[in-house]
Amino acid sequence: MDQKSLLELLKQVQKGTVSPESAVQELKKLHFSDLGFAKVDHHRELRKGFPEVIFCANKTPEQVAAISVKLAEQTEGNILATRADREAYRQVAALLPEAEYHELAKVILIRRGIQEQRGHILVLSAGTSDLPVAEEAALTAEAMGNKVERIYDVGVAGLHRLLRYQDSLLAARVFVVVAGMEGALPSVIGGLVDKPVIAVPTSVGYGASFGGLAALLGMLNSCASGVSVVNIDNGFGAGYQASLINRLGG
Amino acid sequence: MDQKSLLELLKQVQKGTVSPESAVQELKKLHFSDLGFAKVDHHRELRKGFPEVIFCANKTPEQVAAISVKLAEQTEGNILATRADREAYRQVAALLPEAEYHELAKVILIRRGIQEQRGHILVLSAGTSDLPVAEEAALTAEAMGNKVERIYDVGVAGLHRLLRYQDSLLAARVFVVVAGMEGALPSVIGGLVDKPVIAVPTSVGYGASFGGLAALLGMLNSCASGVSVVNIDNGFGAGYQASLINRLGG
Amino acid sequence: MDQKSLLELLKQVQKGTVSPESAVQELKKLHFSDLGFAKVDHHRELRKGFPEVIFCANKTPEQVAAISVKLAEQTEGNILATRADREAYRQVAALLPEAEYHELAKVILIRRGIQEQRGHILVLSAGTSDLPVAEEAALTAEAMGNKVERIYDVGVAGLHRLLRYQDSLLAARVFVVVAGMEGALPSVIGGLVDKPVIAVPTSVGYGASFGGLAALLGMLNSCASGVSVVNIDNGFGAGYQASLINRLGG
Amino acid sequence: MDQKSLLELLKQVQKGTVSPESAVQELKKLHFSDLGFAKVDHHRELRKGFPEVIFCANKTPEQVAAISVKLAEQTEGNILATRADREAYRQVAALLPEAEYHELAKVILIRRGIQEQRGHILVLSAGTSDLPVAEEAALTAEAMGNKVERIYDVGVAGLHRLLRYQDSLLAARVFVVVAGMEGALPSVIGGLVDKPVIAVPTSVGYGASFGGLAALLGMLNSCASGVSVVNIDNGFGAGYQASLINRLGG
Amino acid sequence: MDQKSLLELLKQVQKGTVSPESAVQELKKLHFSDLGFAKVDHHRELRKGFPEVIFCANKTPEQVAAISVKLAEQTEGNILATRADREAYRQVAALLPEAEYHELAKVILIRRGIQEQRGHILVLSAGTSDLPVAEEAALTAEAMGNKVERIYDVGVAGLHRLLRYQDSLLAARVFVVVAGMEGALPSVIGGLVDKPVIAVPTSVGYGASFGGLAALLGMLNSCASGVSVVNIDNGFGAGYQASLINRLGG
Amino acid sequence: MDQKSLLELLKQVQKGTVSPESAVQELKKLHFSDLGFAKVDHHRELRKGFPEVIFCANKTPEQVAAISVKLAEQTEGNILATRADREAYRQVAALLPEAEYHELAKVILIRRGIQEQRGHILVLSAGTSDLPVAEEAALTAEAMGNKVERIYDVGVAGLHRLLRYQDSLLAARVFVVVAGMEGALPSVIGGLVDKPVIAVPTSVGYGASFGGLAALLGMLNSCASGVSVVNIDNGFGAGYQASLINRLGG
Amino acid sequence: MDQKSLLELLKQVQKGTVSPESAVQELKKLHFSDLGFAKVDHHRELRKGFPEVIFCANKTPEQVAAISVKLAEQTEGNILATRADREAYRQVAALLPEAEYHELAKVILIRRGIQEQRGHILVLSAGTSDLPVAEEAALTAEAMGNKVERIYDVGVAGLHRLLRYQDSLLAARVFVVVAGMEGALPSVIGGLVDKPVIAVPTSVGYGASFGGLAALLGMLNSCASGVSVVNIDNGFGAGYQASLINRLGG
Amino acid sequence: MDQKSLLELLKQVQKGTVSPESAVQELKKLHFSDLGFAKVDHHRELRKGFPEVIFCANKTPEQVAAISVKLAEQTEGNILATRADREAYRQVAALLPEAEYHELAKVILIRRGIQEQRGHILVLSAGTSDLPVAEEAALTAEAMGNKVERIYDVGVAGLHRLLRYQDSLLAARVFVVVAGMEGALPSVIGGLVDKPVIAVPTSVGYGASFGGLAALLGMLNSCASGVSVVNIDNGFGAGYQASLINRLGG
Repeated sequence: MDQKSLLELLKQVQKGTVSPESAVQELKKLHFSDLGFAKVDHHRELRKGFPEVIFCANKTPEQVAAISVKLAEQTEGNILATRADREAYRQVAALLPEAEYHELAKVILIRRGIQEQRGHILVLSAGTSDLPVAEEAALTAEAMGNKVERIYDVGVAGLHRLLRYQDSLLAARVFVVVAGMEGALPSVIGGLVDKPVIAVPTSVGYGASFGGLAALLGMLNSCASGVSVVNIDNGFGAGYQASLINRLGG
Repeated sequence: MDQKSLLELLKQVQKGTVSPESAVQELKKLHFSDLGFAKVDHHRELRKGFPEVIFCANKTPEQVAAISVKLAEQTEGNILATRADREAYRQVAALLPEAEYHELAKVILIRRGIQEQRGHILVLSAGTSDLPVAEEAALTAEAMGNKVERIYDVGVAGLHRLLRYQDSLLAARVFVVVAGMEGALPSVIGGLVDKPVIAVPTSVGYGASFGGLAALLGMLNSCASGVSVVNIDNGFGAGYQASLINRLGG
Repeated sequence: MDQKSLLELLKQVQKGTVSPESAVQELKKLHFSDLGFAKVDHHRELRKGFPEVIFCANKTPEQVAAISVKLAEQTEGNILATRADREAYRQVAALLPEAEYHELAKVILIRRGIQEQRGHILVLSAGTSDLPVAEEAALTAEAMGNKVERIYDVGVAGLHRLLRYQDSLLAARVFVVVAGMEGALPSVIGGLVDKPVIAVPTSVGYGASFGGLAALLGMLNSCASGVSVVNIDNGFGAGYQASLINRLGG
Repeated sequence: MDQKSLLELLKQVQKGTVSPESAVQELKKLHFSDLGFAKVDHHRELRKGFPEVIFCANKTPEQVAAISVKLAEQTEGNILATRADREAYRQVAALLPEAEYHELAKVILIRRGIQEQRGHILVLSAGTSDLPVAEEAALTAEAMGNKVERIYDVGVAGLHRLLRYQDSLLAARVFVVVAGMEGALPSVIGGLVDKPVIAVPTSVGYGASFGGLAALLGMLNSCASGVSVVNIDNGFGAGYQASLINRLGG
Repeated sequence: MDQKSLLELLKQVQKGTVSPESAVQELKKLHFSDLGFAKVDHHRELRKGFPEVIFCANKTPEQVAAISVKLAEQTEGNILATRADREAYRQVAALLPEAEYHELAKVILIRRGIQEQRGHILVLSAGTSDLPVAEEAALTAEAMGNKVERIYDVGVAGLHRLLRYQDSLLAARVFVVVAGMEGALPSVIGGLVDKPVIAVPTSVGYGASFGGLAALLGMLNSCASGVSVVNIDNGFGAGYQASLINRLGG
Repeated sequence: MDQKSLLELLKQVQKGTVSPESAVQELKKLHFSDLGFAKVDHHRELRKGFPEVIFCANKTPEQVAAISVKLAEQTEGNILATRADREAYRQVAALLPEAEYHELAKVILIRRGIQEQRGHILVLSAGTSDLPVAEEAALTAEAMGNKVERIYDVGVAGLHRLLRYQDSLLAARVFVVVAGMEGALPSVIGGLVDKPVIAVPTSVGYGASFGGLAALLGMLNSCASGVSVVNIDNGFGAGYQASLINRLGG
Repeated sequence: MDQKSLLELLKQVQKGTVSPESAVQELKKLHFSDLGFAKVDHHRELRKGFPEVIFCANKTPEQVAAISVKLAEQTEGNILATRADREAYRQVAALLPEAEYHELAKVILIRRGIQEQRGHILVLSAGTSDLPVAEEAALTAEAMGNKVERIYDVGVAGLHRLLRYQDSLLAARVFVVVAGMEGALPSVIGGLVDKPVIAVPTSVGYGASFGGLAALLGMLNSCASGVSVVNIDNGFGAGYQASLINRLGG
Repeated sequence: MDQKSLLELLKQVQKGTVSPESAVQELKKLHFSDLGFAKVDHHRELRKGFPEVIFCANKTPEQVAAISVKLAEQTEGNILATRADREAYRQVAALLPEAEYHELAKVILIRRGIQEQRGHILVLSAGTSDLPVAEEAALTAEAMGNKVERIYDVGVAGLHRLLRYQDSLLAARVFVVVAGMEGALPSVIGGLVDKPVIAVPTSVGYGASFGGLAALLGMLNSCASGVSVVNIDNGFGAGYQASLINRLGG
């Protein structure tokens, strides 16, 4: 039952050709009502605070460009495309010249209008090889209107490097902590701070890291409270979750 | 918005105090409509063809008995309780004397009224240790109104035992094939017949059977077409799926 | 013992040179009788309702073309080749110009004669990346003479998209539900309908999806009854199984 | 170097018997400084917002009681003991009569003083077997001063049950979603709401659930954004993380 | 078609009421002939060289005793029951007083008549904890009429203990090598001898032995040629396989 | 202590400058005696019945050719090189023109002199994709002087194809059974024959075959006695083991 | 060839009845010489620096007591029995009253004579639940003559607790670091010190710790250099390895 | 607080403008002191005995060259770059001509000054395919100033080859044992010697070696005491750990 036939039904109620009781019966027949959802769908930006993100992994550059343009017409917010290669960027930029490309994170970001910055998500990474994932998280959070600080290469084998950043650790409201190998950094951060920590295991490592499984299990078994975990290499997911959290305090 | 307030809204439309257009807007605000679903829920037996089954694994005998009585009042169909121990049966039978207990399958079955039998689901098992799971499947199918034939202990290491049952293999409409250890029987059946085969791995075995994993993987990788698989030891699920299939031809 | 020597034996019985009792002893010596099977083999199309499908994964384009021609001579039904690349198609089409190539599904389909359509298998997919597997399932079902409806990109993270298709969900007789990542769509479908659901996990995902393992386990552990599962990415197997089921009601 | 000897050093600087430059050298010798941490430790309640929680799994009832009393002397906040059996409660209650025991969740809770309630964490569970974990999460969040609403038994196989709770879903600030088996509920919730979802896999299930692994992988691979995951059966961890998040908006 | 109706058919051929050609057609209709197999089944001892072994794991003592008696009537060979507890033995011995019980191996052995001993299977075990499995293998081989020598507790961490048994290593025709933990002994034996080695991993170990998985993988990856592997703790299987091999040499 | 110094010691005993008792003490100091082993090494062909096989996987074509020539000088038996590509063959054939290349099996075989054929190893494969592994096994057995029969493409989904080969099944002394996917063929063979079966899982399959793991587990859990297993794709190992067994009956 | 026949041979060389050259040939026939090893075996204490340790897991209290007494007669060093329950201790102590029982570690230790203490192995544990394993390591090292310092409950979620022990960290020569859950402590220690770290994962944890697998993988993937790992819960192995290392500096 | 502001604070104490008590309060505010660590960091070579090693796996040749030059300026010790390809070497050698390239191990080594050799680490490998990992270990140990002996291709399937090296086995102080496939060599070595053994599993193998998992599990479950394990293929880690151990005896 679409909007039009609903209106038709209601007009018949108005005219008296259908009784209210019959109309209730009619509406009850809807097993899966799509009334409200349709509206929500047109207002997805309001409902989730951010337009659809483009996950480019299985899309051609042409598809990415086409979707970008379509989203740019439908929304006034930022547009984010993750796992995008340089060719996808080239085709997007030909149509939307304001697009930025972040090579390390493989992210295309189209910043639009001026966004009030909400304060302070801190993204940390254990090693330099974790940077692509950390940057994906950081750029996602920026695209969603957050202030983001980055502290990279502060793995647990060199704790003193981490401990220099006391002020940043105390100032942040939400933490995204990215680590491969044994994935211990979120536990250390979780023990130092009293704010939510989103842990991101990366597939960095070799041998018995099993593509990030070691880091994932390490983070799930963290002895520190206040740590939750997203999928391996899911920088976007962590940045998104951190943004939802940070927005609560807005 | 419950049924009553919906009726109220429609009456206002009828009276003209609310325009059809406003009513559409009002109805569109419903994000998650429960109108239709509520009705469906009271008619679950119609929708799914069978009343709620009682999974007794984490319930006390008292809870099983109470739920059984409640279901007996709400429905006229058979009632099935799986993974039930003897004590649960004792308490159910005290209240519903017609209850049967099938010890091997750990199933309580309450047959009610006369059900037209739909024809011929064949349940096969590879070894005698697979019988509890096979019986759970067979009794589930019987409870759902199917004719069921059982052929047990016809594992692939003694093919001649299986090949004796040619007539049964040709007559059945749906197959439930239960096997532990290497789980090869469904592949053999799937190669002999042109009917759907529901494969059930069991946790029978030791060592590298890893609690049924070997049988499960074997069945998922079956070289025969027409085989699909349910969870380890899930006799109920197989009997249920076979019943849904058998009913199609009704 | 081939057919000729069997006839010889029976003629000797007729002539009286071999007694019936001796002939019984002779026939009992057959450990593995191939009498009946040979016949069945020539009649495979009847027995299984469909000619041998060509699984192209480890075959050269030349081999695929040669087998296609051979099957085209032996049978009058449709011919299906799965996991076929464009070059294999090119070589098949040179010999059998009526061959169609479905690039997304990597399927070659040769439709022959007019087939009475049996009604309504519904193929659903959770994401756009699941399309190749979903199309393999849909084309297999079509090749086996079924009416197929497709509803794609209705993953559980946007339930409202799914719920719009109420009519289709109520009309279908068998469901093939294709999903990667967490593989939750079959559970949702299984809870809404009272028809058999064949679930197909795909290898779509990354990180802890472990090549489709996450989706596979999710589907095997479905809390909905009436769901069975085929191997990861096995669109063909699901389409085949759904066709066997749909034919029951024919 | 403890506080006393630090003071001594500084007095020598003041007196001029040690030059500032020498004092810097002295202080630089500290490889692992414990100055600040010691203070933090005495103020742990301030730093993390909550006193040490007692994890009773490997402790005797006597040990649990002793630790409870010690914590009651050191802090004025609530005290929480998880995985506690009835005997542990008995011994705690003998010394601290205000202790409550929540049998399902195996939680001892000692509520002290009046705590300003921060608003609205919503705890959902898919099945009745998930209740112990869900209650552990809910009681943890309550002990940390949050308003908690519970919606239980709304698994994805019966979506209509969930969709009735539209108002609650829209009102909550943080979600804890508990599910065993295929673990699909967090994906569905994550697709409906725009708030952070903490997913908790449970070990409920059998066969290929592998002690909660299926649910865990399902949640990590959620196709919905805004979902992060804690360890299997870790209701406490989810309640704690949700409390940290909810406090941000305080 | 059973033996009787077959005879009937042949008599009709003899009488001329059925032509040989029609009889061939009749016989060809048999899809799965059970003629020969039936005979084989009554002669299983001849076909496989040994009567059915009783696997007691899921049987009651009463069942074990009943099956033992039945086998004793049907065969003249030895009877073997594995994974038998003392109570099963007690009940067997009450009926068959010549039964022996081997407690370590949990084996009941009924030696009957005089068997010509075929020469020399050597059973080795790495540690004392592997003895139950090694004894199950040794007793199985003895029950099947082989001479068996045992060398136990010669693990690779003390090679000199093994190397003392040079004569035995050179004299044996078949080797059964039983080891838990890292399972390295079969590789060492396989490198020293030029006879077939059947490797048996045991579940002896802890931690990362994962119930025998480490030993199993070690044996499958043996760098020595001439080693094949049976299931974890499957002493019976190894003894059986070794017996089949040893029998080849007459 | 090499041979020369041993001789020196013994000469001193002869001369009387060292007493026999002292010489015993001297000899007892040898912790790891290499006396005998050295001899064995020069006689490896005798000890193991076959010269060193060349595993080409990590070797350059030049290395393979050089080792082939060296072995051809040291031995008079056949020479076998496995996992060899065409280029390796080209370089070997340039130096040893009698070399044969078996492309499917990736085996180079250099047959030398006339070898008395020992009778009858039967190599079976389930599918055509298993042929490379089956051929590696068959050629290895031929190279070690066995008569080999091949029966390919007789998987369990078409049992009638297998059952036609009754005579071959009854005639063979040792079986090598190669199968991928669910790996069920060895169980069926093991149930039909009373000879040793060496099972070889292959990595043929996709999805939940996990590179041959499904077939491997299936074979290890075979419900048939008399089956032992080698590593995934290890055709060489199976052919070698079968040869050792077959030689026993020589 | 035993010692006696060797002496005989040498006497014949002395007498001239056997030439040195013949004797060399005779000795070369030994395939597996056991000359030297026999001696080594009686001197195992010298060779490995410590008498055989009793692993009590699969032994009866009587067996433990008997072995203890036998070892006490054969050696003058300390005697260590691991995984011993109280009853085993009772029976040992009845015969060897100087035996100590360490309940937490389940270790029986019999200290004998005065041992020069080698300096400073530091045993750290992350949590209180890791104490049994840590104590097994510490007592093993003490039994092997090392000075041992213990620092327990210094997990990475409370780094400040660890950092207080700067002096101990700088003074130790070898580290044994015991941790369950995510197993991150060895990485932190390995980053702070320049001495070898032996990491011991424990099975402490639940859910996705998978019996210590998470900790094991974490330690194997440590981002700190200088860390090696023993089996899960293998406190004895770590203490033994640390002792071998510490002795090097003696 | 950096060094400069600390000095400023202390000068104020000296001047009397800040009291010692206030200064203590000021210093106690430091939650994470970086005083000492900063110094340590400039002196990393002293603290860990070796400059930062360059792990080239994810770095461009340009980055490797740049880091090499920077390290060459900051330190006087050797410089080691692992997992380096030939192009990285070419660019390093252009700037630092004394650089050596070890192709097998993929190691760049820049030897500088004369280093006193500490005695005798023995590196063994089981097969020729393990050489790259073994060489990485050996070169790492050499770069850290150790005497290194190599014994390669002495796998357990040919024990006599190993036993020839008695003198080397007795002379070494630390062992690095590298093996793929079943990974049994460390157990054999650990049983022969009384020195620490660092075991390195390699990913050499196929099928059920699962990328080195079989070897890894084998080593972790070693029945020999005195063995600890590093990650799969982690030759560097083993060489580093062995060097730390060997230095203890300096």
